[in-house]
Amino acid sequence: MVGGSPPSGLEGVVVGETAITRVGGEEGTLHFRGYEARSLAQQVAYEEATALLLRGELPSPSELQELRSSWYALRALPPEVELLAGKLPRATLPMEALRTGLSVLGAGMGPSPPREADLLPFIARAPTWIATWYRASKGLPPVPPDTTLGHVSSYLYMLEGRLPDPDLARALEEYFVLLSDHGMNASTFAARVVVSTLSDPASAMTAAVGALKGPLHGGAPGLVLDMLDAVGTPENAETWIEGALARKDRLMGFGHRVYKVDDPRALLLKEIARRYARPERFALAEAVEQAGLSALRKARPNHPLFLNVEFYAGVVLESVGLPRELFSATFGVARTAGWAAHILEQSANNRLIRPDAAYTGPKDRPVPQLSVAPPAAAVPRPA
Amino acid sequence: MVGGSPPSGLEGVVVGETAITRVGGEEGTLHFRGYEARSLAQQVAYEEATALLLRGELPSPSELQELRSSWYALRALPPEVELLAGKLPRATLPMEALRTGLSVLGAGMGPSPPREADLLPFIARAPTWIATWYRASKGLPPVPPDTTLGHVSSYLYMLEGRLPDPDLARALEEYFVLLSDHGMNASTFAARVVVSTLSDPASAMTAAVGALKGPLHGGAPGLVLDMLDAVGTPENAETWIEGALARKDRLMGFGHRVYKVDDPRALLLKEIARRYARPERFALAEAVEQAGLSALRKARPNHPLFLNVEFYAGVVLESVGLPRELFSATFGVARTAGWAAHILEQSANNRLIRPDAAYTGPKDRPVPQLSVAPPAAAVPRPA
Repeated sequence: MVGGSPPSGLEGVVVGETAITRVGGEEGTLHFRGYEARSLAQQVAYEEATALLLRGELPSPSELQELRSSWYALRALPPEVELLAGKLPRATLPMEALRTGLSVLGAGMGPSPPREADLLPFIARAPTWIATWYRASKGLPPVPPDTTLGHVSSYLYMLEGRLPDPDLARALEEYFVLLSDHGMNASTFAARVVVSTLSDPASAMTAAVGALKGPLHGGAPGLVLDMLDAVGTPENAETWIEGALARKDRLMGFGHRVYKVDDPRALLLKEIARRYARPERFALAEAVEQAGLSALRKARPNHPLFLNVEFYAGVVLESVGLPRELFSATFGVARTAGWAAHILEQSANNRLIRPDAAYTGPKDRPVPQLSVAPPAAAVPRPA
Repeated sequence: MVGGSPPSGLEGVVVGETAITRVGGEEGTLHFRGYEARSLAQQVAYEEATALLLRGELPSPSELQELRSSWYALRALPPEVELLAGKLPRATLPMEALRTGLSVLGAGMGPSPPREADLLPFIARAPTWIATWYRASKGLPPVPPDTTLGHVSSYLYMLEGRLPDPDLARALEEYFVLLSDHGMNASTFAARVVVSTLSDPASAMTAAVGALKGPLHGGAPGLVLDMLDAVGTPENAETWIEGALARKDRLMGFGHRVYKVDDPRALLLKEIARRYARPERFALAEAVEQAGLSALRKARPNHPLFLNVEFYAGVVLESVGLPRELFSATFGVARTAGWAAHILEQSANNRLIRPDAAYTGPKDRPVPQLSVAPPAAAVPRPA
């Protein structure tokens, strides 16, 4: 690689070691600290998954209780930060609110090395911030946190102002655990690059949110629903998909850089969607899935695309009652645990991530003589 | 590299192509778009250097005039943003203010592809934001921008509330041009990773500021001055340096990932410092430089460390009257042009930057049976 031709997008390039998450791209597997991610999602709370990601082990009952108590006590926003939620520019998008909020929540953070206690406030407060900002943007007062609620129920509670349906809260929690980390993806890598300069966790978290915002990463889960809306009925799926491919449109919810088979997360999200989506919504999604897969198999027989995490994520988030505009920010809130784990891991064995680039531009041009010293300095104005 | 042992910190790994800046690490050279950076810094305004970085060519006189006029018109902060400058948490550090400010300034930015007009507001407003926030943090009212001033003079004017000395403003402008870009450094790489997801320029800029904040990148220029203060007198330099090396302290201002010789920027900054620093300050800096270089040469004869950009940067920034706490943020303000150029370049020929990692953790652990479904859902409370 050194001096050779640059790998496009660092595909397949190993940039470091990690003991957090194993993504089996060929086999379609996903493990967090050695545990299969779907089993975890079905069996543990987000707080347990977070402890696992950060510490390497599932917490004992007493450790979990201790974690919940320090975590929930952090949930309320500092007053100076809560005040800002109602003052962001009107044009602010939810992912921008999350980016700004995590930056503000990190005010006064010195340099590394960060410890778990430095990361937990971001994980604990991200839902409070988003709920507070979102309600303020709709002219609604904040819902003060209820420390008797689990992390995910609390998010729904602070958004909606009423206790959530327990089954729907549990469905969202499976989504949260499943999406809590995913190896060296672009947002996590951005966070690690940032923290490798010995910068602080807020800087790394803010960078990660910025990367996740892009539609090639986490910024487009609502687009799958837009596609379903456009297709309209299961009967229309095949014709619509063929039309989209003929127009060379990108089909939302298919294809992934790493997975060469079905994204394992998609399979669980599909089961959650089957349980909680309106039956006609699920039937439509399944018809579009099948039409999409079969058309893509025909179009690219040697490089078939498979279902990715976004396809059923949108259906799940819609089913639990989240507004479409909050899908990406909710993904970001769920991913804070993974980012935190990678920030700790990078910091524990750090070396500055500072790559090289191949220069392809012009060489050795003389600075033109006609270029004169400009009016850089102040010109005193007539009194 | 693929499957092989991970390169530590991506040192020497070519992650992509660039036609913006050529860093000659072996020869100690630096070129922007083919022009030698120090000659540029001595001859062009920051606005001209910015046009060069963004467009690839120095602007003609009429292009420069057009650029100045659209740029200066952007200088004022939108009222919603100006309002926030006085409301950030009291603990906010200057680099955190810059990070939050660029995030807020990007409210409502849709996905790519960005154009120059999307980037210019960040470059134009970064100094206004920092000056406004800094004054607010000291209880001072903002200084409204004066559109007759050049970019760098305007920064000093908005900070200090009076027209700056033309020579000092020009010295600071040489610093701005010289520091405006530096190849695939950590902050620029972070910005490119972020924008490779098709995220927006504000997300990329915010990530870059976060990376620059780290003391291994741009977060420690004040530390060189702290060292000079600790040394006290030129006569004390040798003893002090030997003591620091004996304690295995890291000497500030020496050593760089890429340069194996003197950092060419350091040489120009030294000349600027010679012109503008108090003579006794410069004499002290030079004594510490010489004692440091000779001690490091003795300590590591095969891998000598050389002067890096930070050594005289602090002396220059102090000489033009900037408070020490604003050094890093000023570096960030100067670097916005380079980040903008890299964001445009990445976007023009994009592929998602999504690397891989080598998994080193435990494998295939069964999820323990004792792990039970947690109280994820809301427990209705007694009325």
